[in-house]
Amino acid sequence: MPVNLKEPAQLLLVKGIRLATAEAAIKRTGRADVALIALDEGTRVAATFTRNAFAAAPVTVAREHLAQGPIRALLINSGNANAGTGQPGIDDAKACCEAAAQAQNISAAQILPFSTGVIGSRLPVERIKTASALAVQELQQDAWLASAQAIMTTDTVAKGVSRQVTLANGEQLTITGIAKGSGMIRPDMATMLAFVGTDANIGQDDLQTLLQQVVKPSFNSITVDGDTSTNDACVLCATGQTSSSPLQPGSADWELFADALSAVMAHLAQAIIRDGEGATKFITLQVDGAADTGEARRVAFTVAHSPLVKTACFASDPNWGRILAAVGRTGLENLEISRVDIALDDVPIVAAGAPLPDYKEADAAAVMAQAEFTIRISLGRGEAQALIWTSDLSYEYVKINAEYRS
Amino acid sequence: MPVNLKEPAQLLLVKGIRLATAEAAIKRTGRADVALIALDEGTRVAATFTRNAFAAAPVTVAREHLAQGPIRALLINSGNANAGTGQPGIDDAKACCEAAAQAQNISAAQILPFSTGVIGSRLPVERIKTASALAVQELQQDAWLASAQAIMTTDTVAKGVSRQVTLANGEQLTITGIAKGSGMIRPDMATMLAFVGTDANIGQDDLQTLLQQVVKPSFNSITVDGDTSTNDACVLCATGQTSSSPLQPGSADWELFADALSAVMAHLAQAIIRDGEGATKFITLQVDGAADTGEARRVAFTVAHSPLVKTACFASDPNWGRILAAVGRTGLENLEISRVDIALDDVPIVAAGAPLPDYKEADAAAVMAQAEFTIRISLGRGEAQALIWTSDLSYEYVKINAEYRS
Repeated sequence: MPVNLKEPAQLLLVKGIRLATAEAAIKRTGRADVALIALDEGTRVAATFTRNAFAAAPVTVAREHLAQGPIRALLINSGNANAGTGQPGIDDAKACCEAAAQAQNISAAQILPFSTGVIGSRLPVERIKTASALAVQELQQDAWLASAQAIMTTDTVAKGVSRQVTLANGEQLTITGIAKGSGMIRPDMATMLAFVGTDANIGQDDLQTLLQQVVKPSFNSITVDGDTSTNDACVLCATGQTSSSPLQPGSADWELFADALSAVMAHLAQAIIRDGEGATKFITLQVDGAADTGEARRVAFTVAHSPLVKTACFASDPNWGRILAAVGRTGLENLEISRVDIALDDVPIVAAGAPLPDYKEADAAAVMAQAEFTIRISLGRGEAQALIWTSDLSYEYVKINAEYRS
Repeated sequence: MPVNLKEPAQLLLVKGIRLATAEAAIKRTGRADVALIALDEGTRVAATFTRNAFAAAPVTVAREHLAQGPIRALLINSGNANAGTGQPGIDDAKACCEAAAQAQNISAAQILPFSTGVIGSRLPVERIKTASALAVQELQQDAWLASAQAIMTTDTVAKGVSRQVTLANGEQLTITGIAKGSGMIRPDMATMLAFVGTDANIGQDDLQTLLQQVVKPSFNSITVDGDTSTNDACVLCATGQTSSSPLQPGSADWELFADALSAVMAHLAQAIIRDGEGATKFITLQVDGAADTGEARRVAFTVAHSPLVKTACFASDPNWGRILAAVGRTGLENLEISRVDIALDDVPIVAAGAPLPDYKEADAAAVMAQAEFTIRISLGRGEAQALIWTSDLSYEYVKINAEYRS
């Protein structure tokens, strides 16, 4: 059961972007498992990809195509990650692009391929080619939700969100994004699969810079299980079909747009955690008083990855000793326990490394019994801070991952 | 259920070491939870401790006492870690030492205190003092097994082992060790609680050097959940009560002794993994072809900590893609997938980064269905290697840690 997350009620259309889904029966029959996102001419595309050293074949191909020139479509399949497949996997990804390109009268290099699912199996290329060609016939602006559904794997809820921004001249911009991801979630300078479209007019370099800025506090600040995927990718497509001239970085309009984009990214990143495999809690980790952002993030991720902290969260057990132990094993030099404070939401527990005399466990247990709460850690070493989101470790996580392929 | 591990049938007496247990009702009544290990005069003691920045109070006190001079006793309690307790915790640990010292006519500084259990609660000092004084009256050579039982927490089996060595001159040396540990296991330059005694005659500096050598391939090469404890400690006590002169490093006798000691350490370290919280599998990770030992160990621990690999092991599912993804996220620079091989026991699966054409999943599944198997990873970057041991991630791990304090 996802934590406070429902299927999006409405996803707004984005001028210049049409979508379609189709069934290629990749893992099982009876559901759409291919999504095609077609971009009008003139659309600018920025992307970030996994830093896992063993990037999947579609990531390799997408990087290559992105470097070559204008992108006109994204082709996504679920049910098979096309990772760990060597050169044949790369050939498969290109063959799928080729089929989708022919049906649209564009070149294969103008398509970015994405795959998600089991690692190590070859794609059913012929079925995906057929499905892609069919999808081209079905393209329409109003298929964001269907696409979000088609790219799900262990996700239990389709993830998407829209935002609108009114610029100084009265023009209205739209941003719509969809994402998938539930397990093998610890994006590293990238994300699980996320596709965000906007009709904003933004220069290519500015678009890539902006994307890199907004993924850090969103997709790069979440973790379910610490397992960085081989297929993470976040793509931002700006069709420029509003009539305005390009947004200028630093302008008031730019800030409005960047804020809205950040909100979309944060919503999608949080949605992945809310639907994290087996999640029963949505947990925010807030670390402050760090010497620099890097160490604040290291502490936050160490606590977020601790199986003992995660199971205590599952049990609503304010076993703060496990939090303290995880902070202590982070490996920060000269970390002094006598400067560390810990609180759960607004219930202070540890001050200067020891429990507060008037701390009542029942207060902390009440915080942890909520579906959402914040673990606050102050290191007392400086001014830097970090904020990340994670889920708990439940029986269901083990079940999902012990039975995933069966 | 521990994996291929039974309570030791016989633990050999060590000349110069007497032990006793007592009940202090620390966490619950009806079991001995205090162990006292008395060392004859002349015994040399070496120890290694946790590198968790937030070392528990007894670790701080033990380090201080060890620096001061000859140690005559070890005082251990289970049920409470006396960690995260600030200065009051340090005072508590010293008060317990004081009581045990008075009963033995030695000084408090001659006692090393050790605690294991829940973090963040104060010790029931008065009850431990009473129990310690009682234990002094009960000291006997034949109480190794009872002591191993008294220091258990979530352990399901008492852990201990003995070895004997016959030196060139016909003398026989004995080594007996006990250990506890089941969760919060990822010793970092130290170990969970382990106490090893021998009647060998070894110089103080040689003893410490030897201990540091033997813990690396044993206690420092195991992980259950990556959570380095605040209380890890490994203590080696050499009474010197054999008639021989001190063993000389490099001599044939030294090598015999060091080999036997290494075997004791490896047995105890493996016993902790075999009885790892919720363990159903005993998994060896063997990484070779690394540029140096450090990166070999990083890869091995990253795979061993991956919740996805651990759940696949639990499910006996040869989902090698998860292994490949974990290797890829280790963060080694310039790691090339095209040089990576993966095998399960003697079943090769991945060669040069892609599955072998004649790989049959049934063969790998048969390996993983065993209670013990080895994941072999070759990086193709050099000659260095690493060997570590870990357990799987089961429903039972979640249950134990979600219900530990209840």
